[in-house]
Formats: sequence, C-alpha cells, structure tokens
Amino acid sequence: MSRDLDALFTPASIAVIGASSDRDKVGGQLLHHLKAHGYTGRVYPVNPRYRDVAGWPCYPSLDDVPEAPDLVLLPVPAEAVGDQVLRAGRRGARFAVVYAAGFAEVGLTGAAAQKDLWQRARAWGLRVVGPNCQGFINFHRRIVCNWSSAFEASPLVPGPVAFASQSGAMIGFTYPEALRLGMGFSYVVSTGNEADVDVFECITWLADDPETRVIMAYLEEIRHIDRFWRAVAATRAAGKPLVVLKAGRTARGAVAAASHTGALAGDDRRYDALFRRAGVIRVNDVEELLTTADLLARDRWPTGPRLGILVNSGGMGVLLVDEAIARGLEVPALGEATKARLRAHLPPFAAVDNPVDAIQAFRQIEHLDGLLTALREAPEVDVVVLFVGMAQMGTAYPLSLMVRTLGRWGDNTAKPLLVVWMGGSSEVVDALRRLRVPVFTNPTTAIKALTHLYAAARGRARADAEPRGDPGVVEAEGLTAGWFSAARTLAWLADHGIPVVPGVRVAHPAEAPAAAASLGFPVAVTVDTSSLLHKSDVGGVALGVTADAVRNVAERLYARAREEAGPADVGLLVQAMAAPGVELLVGVVADARLGPFVLVGSGGLMTEWLDDVVLEPAPVTAAQAAAMLQQLKSYPVLAGVRGHAPADVDAVAQVVATLSELAGRRTADGLVLTELDINPLVVYPAGQGCLALDARMRWVAPEAGAHGAG
Amino acid sequence: MSRDLDALFTPASIAVIGASSDRDKVGGQLLHHLKAHGYTGRVYPVNPRYRDVAGWPCYPSLDDVPEAPDLVLLPVPAEAVGDQVLRAGRRGARFAVVYAAGFAEVGLTGAAAQKDLWQRARAWGLRVVGPNCQGFINFHRRIVCNWSSAFEASPLVPGPVAFASQSGAMIGFTYPEALRLGMGFSYVVSTGNEADVDVFECITWLADDPETRVIMAYLEEIRHIDRFWRAVAATRAAGKPLVVLKAGRTARGAVAAASHTGALAGDDRRYDALFRRAGVIRVNDVEELLTTADLLARDRWPTGPRLGILVNSGGMGVLLVDEAIARGLEVPALGEATKARLRAHLPPFAAVDNPVDAIQAFRQIEHLDGLLTALREAPEVDVVVLFVGMAQMGTAYPLSLMVRTLGRWGDNTAKPLLVVWMGGSSEVVDALRRLRVPVFTNPTTAIKALTHLYAAARGRARADAEPRGDPGVVEAEGLTAGWFSAARTLAWLADHGIPVVPGVRVAHPAEAPAAAASLGFPVAVTVDTSSLLHKSDVGGVALGVTADAVRNVAERLYARAREEAGPADVGLLVQAMAAPGVELLVGVVADARLGPFVLVGSGGLMTEWLDDVVLEPAPVTAAQAAAMLQQLKSYPVLAGVRGHAPADVDAVAQVVATLSELAGRRTADGLVLTELDINPLVVYPAGQGCLALDARMRWVAPEAGAHGAG
Repeated sequence: MSRDLDALFTPASIAVIGASSDRDKVGGQLLHHLKAHGYTGRVYPVNPRYRDVAGWPCYPSLDDVPEAPDLVLLPVPAEAVGDQVLRAGRRGARFAVVYAAGFAEVGLTGAAAQKDLWQRARAWGLRVVGPNCQGFINFHRRIVCNWSSAFEASPLVPGPVAFASQSGAMIGFTYPEALRLGMGFSYVVSTGNEADVDVFECITWLADDPETRVIMAYLEEIRHIDRFWRAVAATRAAGKPLVVLKAGRTARGAVAAASHTGALAGDDRRYDALFRRAGVIRVNDVEELLTTADLLARDRWPTGPRLGILVNSGGMGVLLVDEAIARGLEVPALGEATKARLRAHLPPFAAVDNPVDAIQAFRQIEHLDGLLTALREAPEVDVVVLFVGMAQMGTAYPLSLMVRTLGRWGDNTAKPLLVVWMGGSSEVVDALRRLRVPVFTNPTTAIKALTHLYAAARGRARADAEPRGDPGVVEAEGLTAGWFSAARTLAWLADHGIPVVPGVRVAHPAEAPAAAASLGFPVAVTVDTSSLLHKSDVGGVALGVTADAVRNVAERLYARAREEAGPADVGLLVQAMAAPGVELLVGVVADARLGPFVLVGSGGLMTEWLDDVVLEPAPVTAAQAAAMLQQLKSYPVLAGVRGHAPADVDAVAQVVATLSELAGRRTADGLVLTELDINPLVVYPAGQGCLALDARMRWVAPEAGAHGAG
Repeated sequence: MSRDLDALFTPASIAVIGASSDRDKVGGQLLHHLKAHGYTGRVYPVNPRYRDVAGWPCYPSLDDVPEAPDLVLLPVPAEAVGDQVLRAGRRGARFAVVYAAGFAEVGLTGAAAQKDLWQRARAWGLRVVGPNCQGFINFHRRIVCNWSSAFEASPLVPGPVAFASQSGAMIGFTYPEALRLGMGFSYVVSTGNEADVDVFECITWLADDPETRVIMAYLEEIRHIDRFWRAVAATRAAGKPLVVLKAGRTARGAVAAASHTGALAGDDRRYDALFRRAGVIRVNDVEELLTTADLLARDRWPTGPRLGILVNSGGMGVLLVDEAIARGLEVPALGEATKARLRAHLPPFAAVDNPVDAIQAFRQIEHLDGLLTALREAPEVDVVVLFVGMAQMGTAYPLSLMVRTLGRWGDNTAKPLLVVWMGGSSEVVDALRRLRVPVFTNPTTAIKALTHLYAAARGRARADAEPRGDPGVVEAEGLTAGWFSAARTLAWLADHGIPVVPGVRVAHPAEAPAAAASLGFPVAVTVDTSSLLHKSDVGGVALGVTADAVRNVAERLYARAREEAGPADVGLLVQAMAAPGVELLVGVVADARLGPFVLVGSGGLMTEWLDDVVLEPAPVTAAQAAAMLQQLKSYPVLAGVRGHAPADVDAVAQVVATLSELAGRRTADGLVLTELDINPLVVYPAGQGCLALDARMRWVAPEAGAHGAG
C-alpha cells in the first residue's frame, strides 16, 4: 500500500542530467558516488558535451535515453530546473531529485519558481524530491544519490536506522557522529523545501521497509498534517519508533495573539501536543537523537520503569538515581532474595542497596558476572544499568574478558542492559559497540535514551492515536468573519449544548433593568462588544448589581465602553450571578496548517501567569478530556483538596469534548472557527455541573486563516 | 590567611607508613608515584621489614624518622589507623592522609572509630584528610599522594583547574575525560568522610593558590556550613569561579514533614538556595562540570548575554537559538552596519540574519575570517558561537589554516568565541584545543557552559553574598519544646512586630460568644490546638460566623476537635473576619546542618499543588525579600493584574525580613525555632498592609534538632 516510493528509493534506472567527470560539480560527484559504491541498476549520464562519463555512455538529452528512467537526478542551477523537470516528466520518468537552492527558502520569487516546478511535474505525473536538498542513500543496496562529502570521508555502514530530514546539512554532519556510536543505516533522505514529496511520505514508506527498524526525523515544520498522521499510523502499525528532532522550540519575538487560547497554545506547544498524541518520541539535540535511535533499534523493550543500577562509584550511583527519578523512572528497593545473591559477590562490610555499589568487586570477573546475573534475574528490576569508572578497575583479568561477558548478556534475557563507561580507553567502548552492547560515555545521555526506550515500549502497547480528520460543517446562522462578543458566543455555545449562565443582551442601558428583573437580582452587568477583548482591563465588568443600582451601573458601563470602543456594536450583557466555583479556561484553536486543537487551563486570573494548560489535537472524547484535566497542575483543586468537595470533572470533560468537536468547523460559506475560549468556565461540586460565564470566538474566511490563528 | 594547608599540599617531607615495593599495595603504589613523578622533597618510608624502599632508606617506625614530617601518608587497614594517627601526632607531623574505608560510611561502629581517630589527631594538633579517600595531587610540583591507577594510565597535565571532591572514584574516572577535553589541573583532592579537613577548607586554600583559576567540587553533603561560607568568601574575593556537582537532587522516599515550609523546602532546594546566594555554579553531570570549568578557566568574561551565531547549517542555527533562548541567553537582531559587513562574504541571495547562515562561505578562508571579524566587532554581540558541520565544508584550503585562524581569535578581542564542531575528525578538534580555542562537539553542552560563563561573569560583579551567621537569642517567655497552636504562634509573631488579625483564644466554647462580641461580628472560629496541624482537613474552621450562630458553631467545632485530638490542649481561636486579599505563605525552617532559611510561596489552597515557592538562606533584608517575591510564578497577582490593584509588596517584604531574623533563633534554654509558617498571610492593596491569619511554629531542643527540621 505504501510502496509508492519504491521507484525512488530502489530505482532500476537513473538518469543524471548535467553529467560530468568533474567531481567539483554536483553532477560529477553524483556519478562518482553511483559508480564507486557499485550501483547495479542502469545509469544514463546526460550531457551533449560528452560521449561517456565514468564508464557509462553519455546521452545528448533525456529524449535520447533508451528507456523512461525510474529516477532523474537534476544537479542543475535553479534557473534550469523548471525546464529539466518538464523534460523529465515528458520522458515518462517517475521521480526527480532537485538539488538546487534558490527556491521558496529565499523569498517570494523563489516560491513562485517552486510552485511552477511542482505544477510542471504534476502535469506529467512526475514526483519530485527537493528542491534545496541533498538527495538520498539506500545503504543496503549502496545507491548513493546524495552529493555530500560526508559519504566520501566515511564508509557506507548498513543497519536498521533510517533518517529522513528536512535539512540536508543535518544528515551530513550527523552521519559521522552516528558512525562513532557504531550505528548503521538503511536510508537517509533529505527532502529540502518539499515542493512535492515530503518527509512524512518518506517515513510512511520507511515504515513498510523490512530493513528499517527505527526512523529518525529532523523537522522544521509540518507542511501536510494529513501526511503526518498517515506516517504515524504506518509506523505504529509496523511497531517502528519514530524519533523526532524538531527545530524551533522557542518563539523569537512576540506572537500577537488576540485570545488566551491563541497565546497559550503557541506554535511549539501545538507540535508537542501532536507528537504526544501520535506517540512520536521528541528529542532536543543530535546526540539525544542518535543515542535514542541507536538504543531503540535493538528492539529490546523494558516491561517496566524499574532500574537495577550497578556501579563502581557510589557517587555516580547517586547521580544516576537523580537523573532517573527526575525523568520519571524508578529505582526500587531490592528484595531479600536478590540482596542475598548480590551479597555473595560483595565485601562483607558493604551495604547492599540499589544502586549496588560494587566497591572493588569488578576486579574479579566472576563477581562482576555474579552481580549482573543477580540483577538480570531479579523480578523487581526491568532494566539493568552498569556504570564502569575505568580508573577504578585494577582488574585481575584482561578487559576483553569483560567485553565478552557483557556481550553475552543478550543470550540470557530480553531485559535491556545499558553500560555507562567513563575514564577508559575508547577501544573498549568500540569493542562493546561491535558486540551491540548499548554503551554510553555520559550517564545523563544514557538515562535520557532509557526514558525514551521506556516511553516507546509503552507506546507500542497503546491504542490508535489519530484524531478524526475533517471537523465538518455547521449551520451558518448568520455568522460573519471576525470576533464575536460574549453574548453572541455564549448563545452559540448554548445552541451546541454547552451549559451557559442565563443572560440577556441589551443594546441600550435603558433596557438593562427589565432584563435584570427577568433574571432575578443581583445580576452581573458587562460591556458586550466584539472589539473590547479584555473587558476587566477597562472596568467593563460589574458584579452583584442590585435592583437599585442596575440603571446607574448600566449607564456608566455603556458610556465607558462607547468611549473606548466607539459607537459600533456596543451593548450590555446582563447575566444571573453564578455561584462561585473552580474557574477553568477551555478553548479551541484551529491551526490552518496543523489542524484543530483543544485546550484546558486554570481559569480566571491564573490563566496567564500560571501557564497551567494542557493542549490536545481535537477532537477528544470525554475520557481523553478527563485525562487532560488530570494533567493540570491545578487538578488537585478539581479533585477536592483540604475539605473542599470534588468538582464535577465529568461535566467539564463533556464540555471539553463537545467544544473539541466544534474546533475547526466551517460554515457552508467556508468560514472557519479558528479560536474560541470560555474563561471562566465555573465548575461546581460533583453532580452540579459547570457554567460558561464569559467567552469569545473568531470565524475566519479561508484565505485570512491560511497562516494560522495565533 | 588561608595558607593553613600549605604543609599538606606542598609538604617539604613525607613519611609513608606501611611502605612497600609491592605496587599491588596502596603503600607501594604511593611510593612509586612519589618516585616516578619526581617528588623533590624528603621521603621517609616506614616499615620494620625493609631497609630501603624505592631507593629511599626505610625506617622501622615513625619515631626513627630524622624529622617531624610535614605529611604522613597512612595506607594502612582501618583497624590500624587509630594507632598510627596517634603515633603521627606524637611525632609532630602536621598532616596525615588516611586512605582506608570502613569508617562512618559503614555504620555506627565505623562512625565511632572515625570520631576516635579525629580526637586522637586533635589532641596532638595533627590535621587529617580522610578516612575513605584517595588523597591528593599537586600537579605543578608533581606531588602525587593519590593511589588511583588513573594517574598511571594518564599523564599528569598541569593547568589552571582544581578539583576538590568528596568522592575519590569521581576524580579517578573524571580525570581521563578531562584530558580528552584538553584540560589541565593544579590540584585534585579527595576528602572522603571528612573526619577533619573538608572539601571547603581545601577550596578556601585553593582560592589563594596562584596556579588555580577555577575550582570544581563534587559534593554529597555540606558538613560545616561555616566552612562553606568561608570558602565562598575566599573564592569570591579571589574572583575564582566555584563549579559544583552535587549528588542527591531527588529525594527518594517520602520525607515526613509536619509543616508546609518543611515539606516545600526540601533538602535539595536548600542546597540550591545556598548555591544561588553564594554565586556557586551548579551543574548536573560530569560533562557539564568539565566543559564549564574548562570554559571558565579561560578567564574571558562576556559583558552581556547577546550571542552572535555563525553556522554552516541553517537547521543547527535554529537548534542553537532554541537552546540559547530556553536558557535565558539572547540572540539579537543585527544592526545594518554589521549586516553590510557580513553581506560582503555571503552569496547574493542569502538572507542575512542572526544566526548567520554561511551557506558555502566557509569554503574560502577569507570569507570565514570576514564573517567572524564582522561578528567579533559587532557592538550588538557579546559572545560569538561558530558552528562547523564538517561534512559541509569542501574547503579550498587546508583545515590547519582554519585552525590557525580560529586560534588567533584571542589576539584581537576579549569577546569570547565558542566553536561547536560536528561530523569532523577528532584531530581538528584536538588541534583547536591545543590552541586553547573552546571547542564543543555537542551544541547543547556548549550553550549550557556559555550560560554558566555568563552567570559567573555577572556573579563576579555582585556584592557579597553571605548571610549573617548566628541568629542570636530570643527571650524565653515560657516557650517549651514542640509545636505551638495558631493562637500561641500568632501572639508570639505579634510580639515580634508581625501584623496579625485580631483574635482571642478561649479554652471552652461557652466563652466564644463574649470573645466574638469583643471583636465584632461576623467572626472566624477555628479549633486551636498544637496537635491538629491541618485544621481544614477535619472541618475545624468556620468563617463568617454571626452572633446568632457563634455558640452552636463553637460547641460543634470543640466537640469535633476533642474527638480527633483527645482532651489535651484543645481550645478555640475566635478571630475578626479579615477582608479578602492575595494569600501568601511565608515560613522559616532552620536546618541543623545548613542553617536557617526563609521561604515565600503562593498561599491558601495553592501552596501545595503549585509548588510556587522561593527559598533563601536567612536572614534577608526587605530588599532581598522583595526580590524573592518577584521570583514567584504568582508575582503578577501581587503586582496587579487585569484591573486588580497592586498589592502591598513592601509590607510583605518587611514581614519576610522580620521573620527571617527569627529563623534559627534560640532561647536562653537552648530551644531552637526550627519551623514556623504563616499561611495565609493576606496581602492588601498597596499602603494597606498585610495580616497573618493562621500560623504555627516548632521549637526543638538542640539534640532533637540535630538532624534537621524536615
């Protein structure tokens, strides 16, 4: 089903436009790579100036090539690309790789050229990788369509890890670092500007590739959310972890956000929510990317988070525990049976605990072996971590014996072993790596990778993650593009089944007393306009207003609002006074590129300064919504703390689920609900429900929404 | 002034007890090291079984040695240590190093032996390093009194970094890793169980040592807080950064804490507060310790946090910005003048921004040089970070030229340069390190070290950090050991100038109406007892009680409290109803080992689940207290948010300062105030003060307090 890219990654024939013997040219470099690495398919150099290149006959033009090639490599300058893509399409080629820079990454003219390139290719059914990329490598078949010098200085080492990257440079300098760790690769592919084929299509294909066990990705953005979810579904179905390094964690410069939800659900938080829901493992730097992928590729899954730690430095034992506990792993007390087995290999005065401090016991191989065996067979331990501070060894046996002993670990158990090795020579580390023992030279890196291994193990067991796709259409009901006031928004929410506090909007203060009387005193009176977004900032709120005061209060608020907002669309919202309760923020935001999200957070004053929010791709079920609430820092307040009754979490969860179904909805006219927040949603004790008190929303015409709501 | 340890670190004469030619014995190893590394002082091997050892005449006993040696090395078993220490003291030696394990680290018997050892030494004025240590090395004078094999496998490399460690093993396996980074050392010293000389005495001495520029420390605990502060004062006076790796960040197992402050001010948070106040740089692992110390040792201080980043991978540029911003550094926009200079070295289509993406410009050395010069001379840049992804280079010049170019950076500027180098051969990295260019192979590590460098640079400019020492004595006033109820605590606080809400304690519910009438209705009635610490958990609080209800409410609360607490010491506290305001927690805790601390936090319900607290060593000034408040996540609420008036921060700061003066106070009888918290302290708008509503405190007899309050 996802073999669409077969002819790209394992082409039977490759044409190289701009062929050359000059290796200072990309075309020369590509042909050299194809030759030197022993590509066994048919190669067609194309260049009217040569008769043959690198031992292959050279053709004056693509039309002269004896077959429609699976793949055309286009190492030509940006200005020649459009023409060459057209020729490749016309000739019936299935894929082209465009290397040149100077397209969408340099501005509007480049973006137009890129769109033109894509249209020309699409007209002929040609799929394009790039532009602004470095191509790909199929390691097991030694097909090198990447021009980077990294693959000259370093050998091609086949293995189980694939790397799909939006940056070509990232592959180039990462590869030698990966080799240092003893890693091997199935494929690397750089997708550049992604005019057509993107990184997620490649990942979907890699998920089905039998030689790939783990997929690494470097991302700068997700251009097609549907392809993201397809890739996630494919990797999950195949049981292959996807480890992602996403650049752009921090927003530089302020994002002008008109709603709480828009501001709180910042760009990186949206990516984070997507990755979390998708079971994607997110890392923060290249070292973490490589060491994590390398560990996951061993396909050895811990059944729990409990570490058994064996060290020859008590201090390092404490540091390992610090790191493990801080990252949510466990270092359990050992049972008496395990302790007794350990004690047989330790000095009499040693306190036997977890971490196990071996003191000088590593000096005898039978003691090291005995200690490891005891931990390996301990039912209270899911993963064994061995720290060897080499300077402390003074072994009575050659180190090769220790290497062999550790190398045989996997013969006896599926339980993972991680070795942290410091202060020794790199030869021992390399020897362990050759035996496929996971060995780290930094304990923090080891624990990080282990945390990801455990998360991946849990993720493999989880049910499917993808939210339903299209949010669907709602009835138009006179909606127009723009922001809506509290009264309009609350009324719309009530129509969609969200409980809101009773209220009446009046256009003039003179109507306020009657409206208030119909609700019963005291009432709340607020300015109602789509243009004043933070009413309390301008004194536009009056609470507990009595019958005596309502006329005056209404006049005052109205006058004040007219001063601030001008004449347009100013009214008053008169509401029944809601009883106090726990205040939450609930909102949705529809990102034009990443899709809809739903957000819950501490409400009222606390929303902004606490930054206590949980974001999920929408829609969510009530059960998922309840799980979101449990992740709030303020959840104890909802759950009932210090004599306060538990709040009606079920009612809130239902509101969140309902609201999440509305996120991203469009009207028949094409307006899209891009932002909505309820703040506060007041929550009452269990069984007594919740009420929306204030809210606003924004509907956007499709073009205006194209760059997201935030 | 702090030359006390001269005779330890630069002894004119050393006696080695248990001398041997057998290098499998610690005594043999030590003599071998002294010989092999060329110690130039006088050496006296002591062993009745030999006439000479390692070419030195051997003496039957220490009494036969021709002079009182500066230093006696005692590589003898634990059971022989006491006797040998006595002999060394009697012979007039000034220092002894005790290597044997089996003392305080193995339990009570060992602790007794260690105390005995210390008493014997003290009687003769002998200072002892150890037991359970690996000794020390003076690198510049090649005096190796450490037995670890690390210093056989690796050469002694002199340099500006000292390492004082409570763990000997940590030095052993860290040293080879440091050499890999190109570092050199002035001293390493392992202090083990610290029966006498501790790591901070060593640091104080090292602060005065002309060969030491940076001091690293590995800590498991602070045994003498006064020595810590002396060491801090000495390093600050000398302008030498102190970089600390402290094990034990996470508390394993629950700490039974009776007060909010006790629980919130956990052990590691206390250490963190001490380090922050002291300007000590805290790191989390060995790699961060070494790379930070190495960078600080260059003695090149940034004058601001603004990075100019030059990369040959756009993706890595974004990752560096992510890491820098996340850690509080800045990546400013570049001025037009700088951009113009950069543009001269970049392709015409390049967007010139910070990070500067060099694209292919590194291929020409004059472009690399030009780009670096432009950033070096840019007034908007305080530090330059250069990322080189080697696989991208394809340079038209030998790499040695690039190395030389980078190596000459320091000739032109005091502005720091950090190089991050990935994907290349280790030879280039080593060559750069030989030229003292700070070079990193992991961008995250580089940014972490840079963050510490900038913190150290700011710290050098700061005023003195140490809190005043002895908290002093308070009048006894009938205080007894134990917890005190709210009524007793509030009364005591009022006596010491803290504003408290008016209240009357009654012993029996029948007295409540009169008490309430004297305060004015409505009132708050709470159970008052030293034994019910969380009153609201047991329904022991009634608010807004009217004249009609007070008798019944009092009866009910009293009956309930008697059920829960038994007959002892139960009364009722009747208080005036305080107006609502912002609720804070303010508390103090006196740690028997680390000294007194003061804490502020979000109050009321939020205290526990928000974990929004700031801790400082006590006492603090009102200005320091105000700075603490500003660090609270909830500070915006105090400062005034969304139409709410700013709170009376000055009044709170005064309360915090006053309370901090009381932390750790003792009565004339020796009782110590170990815990006190006010929760809530209700804060009113600016100028209207604040009021303590509830509080409790604990006074502890000195012995009981010996293991801290938490």
